[in-house]
Amino acid sequence: MDLIEDIVTPFNIQASEKGVDYDKLIAQFGCQKVLPAHIKEIEEITGKKAHHLLRRGIYFAHRDLEMILNTAKMKKPFYLYTGRGPSSAALHLGHMIPFILNKWLQEVFDVPVVIQITDDEKYLYRQELSLEQVKHFSRENIRDIIACGFDLNKTFIFTDTSYINFLYPNFLKMQKHLTVNQIFGCFGFNGSDCVGKIAYPPLQAVPAFSNSFPHIFRNKNDIPCLIPEAIDQDPYFRLTRDIAPKINYLKPAVLHAKFFPALQGLHTKMSASDENTAIYLTDSKKEIERKIKSFAFSGGGKTLQDHREKGANLEVDVPFQYLSFLMEDDERLDEIRQKYGKGEITTGEVKKDLIGLLQKLVEDHKVKKKEVTDELIDKFMEIRELDVKL
Amino acid sequence: MDLIEDIVTPFNIQASEKGVDYDKLIAQFGCQKVLPAHIKEIEEITGKKAHHLLRRGIYFAHRDLEMILNTAKMKKPFYLYTGRGPSSAALHLGHMIPFILNKWLQEVFDVPVVIQITDDEKYLYRQELSLEQVKHFSRENIRDIIACGFDLNKTFIFTDTSYINFLYPNFLKMQKHLTVNQIFGCFGFNGSDCVGKIAYPPLQAVPAFSNSFPHIFRNKNDIPCLIPEAIDQDPYFRLTRDIAPKINYLKPAVLHAKFFPALQGLHTKMSASDENTAIYLTDSKKEIERKIKSFAFSGGGKTLQDHREKGANLEVDVPFQYLSFLMEDDERLDEIRQKYGKGEITTGEVKKDLIGLLQKLVEDHKVKKKEVTDELIDKFMEIRELDVKL
Repeated sequence: MDLIEDIVTPFNIQASEKGVDYDKLIAQFGCQKVLPAHIKEIEEITGKKAHHLLRRGIYFAHRDLEMILNTAKMKKPFYLYTGRGPSSAALHLGHMIPFILNKWLQEVFDVPVVIQITDDEKYLYRQELSLEQVKHFSRENIRDIIACGFDLNKTFIFTDTSYINFLYPNFLKMQKHLTVNQIFGCFGFNGSDCVGKIAYPPLQAVPAFSNSFPHIFRNKNDIPCLIPEAIDQDPYFRLTRDIAPKINYLKPAVLHAKFFPALQGLHTKMSASDENTAIYLTDSKKEIERKIKSFAFSGGGKTLQDHREKGANLEVDVPFQYLSFLMEDDERLDEIRQKYGKGEITTGEVKKDLIGLLQKLVEDHKVKKKEVTDELIDKFMEIRELDVKL
Repeated sequence: MDLIEDIVTPFNIQASEKGVDYDKLIAQFGCQKVLPAHIKEIEEITGKKAHHLLRRGIYFAHRDLEMILNTAKMKKPFYLYTGRGPSSAALHLGHMIPFILNKWLQEVFDVPVVIQITDDEKYLYRQELSLEQVKHFSRENIRDIIACGFDLNKTFIFTDTSYINFLYPNFLKMQKHLTVNQIFGCFGFNGSDCVGKIAYPPLQAVPAFSNSFPHIFRNKNDIPCLIPEAIDQDPYFRLTRDIAPKINYLKPAVLHAKFFPALQGLHTKMSASDENTAIYLTDSKKEIERKIKSFAFSGGGKTLQDHREKGANLEVDVPFQYLSFLMEDDERLDEIRQKYGKGEITTGEVKKDLIGLLQKLVEDHKVKKKEVTDELIDKFMEIRELDVKL
């Protein structure tokens, strides 16, 4: 019996080397499993094969996903809400996951996406950061996000400080209906934390209410919202869903991803605070090769003989996990699963595949990012009507 | 020895029937007494006789008033900041006091005034109020404030919800430098209060920093700020002054008024929550007469004989106190002080004077208020350049 509980909060992830026990987490958080029936329904509604992040169970848990699928089935509007905390200028692969899925969902469901850049949060939570630094990070992060391919006509990106006048009324409504003790309990804060830290969490709720975006949804109220994010963000949306009915708003639906593991193993997620745990979207081909070769934790046998006999433990193998998140080719991934699992190919060979894939992915991203002009950033952030079916 | 301590907080005033012990309060809050030398200096700088609210010691305490007077002496710019919490549509006489002084200071020093309407605060602090109600109250209160005669070219009035995008960066700076425990300690809150209540106090600091008003002060930073308000607001500005140097801002100066007493006596201030304690700016002549005659607490003798022998106790006499706040005619006030103090005139006679004065004051205000159009309100609230010497 595993006596050590996983720690999963918006600020800290700690698990055993086997990674987070996601079934336990679902039970603990009180959300639901994404089932094959959900995936099938998405495919039926959109007429498209589901994204591999869905098919491979990386987006594995939800709340009220059926509500969104029913809305889509009735050809009624819904929208996607995701975000990013701009704690550094460079993003890593783990940061890309929600944007990859949101971009895909936008495309196949033909729905708007709102993207919150929580510059206020990072300023308040990181002692060492100034507002100016965080604003710079925000702009660079937005550049990366746009490079993921979002549709300008259906996407609104905003920083909290630039859009606060639209967010503030709903922020106040949330703040009036949450006690300090509830925030303490939900996030593990206490009285010696700065008041901004305690005040912030309700702001992450606000983009889940469609009347925060009058320029997008005009006079239509209560457009359903789906929030695809990593599961560490769940506490924010548990609060949101608790309070929503008290202020006469619809509860948002959530779709939660597993963590993109650190190079060193599944005990924690890829983190921007230690650069050797992460592949950055700015890394050179050489750096990618070096990091994967030096750091990516192998589930293979300790000796070649051992490996040939027992095969690799794919559950803890970082290269294989990364391929599951990022390799689009199902057949090739399945071949690797079979052969690597049986010990027929080595970690070195799998890493070679991964290095090639990451180098291409990062280089492609760099090209797309170069095309993102300052003017285009301003366009995505402009408060404007979107091309949305209401 | 008086064993019962006065209670003076932004939310509650309780004192003995003699009223708040203001000397004790100065010591307790750690502010300074306004001295005859200050009044004299104001008169020297402006070339005008000091306002009776200053001359009569109603504005009795300060922090850093010398800094403001030195600034004025050097003909450098400073500005005034005052505010109003819109908890009801109708204002009473007590609410007028800071506006009367601010209007006068604006005129004689030729300086800008910024007026914060804390609609967010009242929404958060009053369980029963909706945001829509508070917004309605704000607009009606602004109408009354403009009727006090502020100069459109030198006055900017804003509600927190309408101006939050300009306030938010400094709000975050304040929030980052204050712990929850500091807010708890300063305002007597605890963990069962809503998070908005704890988050709000730093927002009252923000208008004290001149870079919150780029349209008024352009690129000039750290224009000194003077805040004339009732002394119950001191906790907000103690916090402001504590934090200001940590975020590289100038500490604002404050100038504190005594409370405008309730009709029933000096143990508390005039309050909008019990209409029989207050004279409203909407009261009819008859209502004013009835309230003063029925409720205004008399310091006169219990019998006419007793009164003729010992005279009135002016310190607890509400009609005389009101005259001190509102009667401009020094000679007449002095005459009443002498004769009423000696018992030569009765409470009835003094009340008659007061009723006449209040009726005229309220009727004049009603006329001026009628002239305040919706268009004029919008003009005062427009984010614009002011006619300010920088």
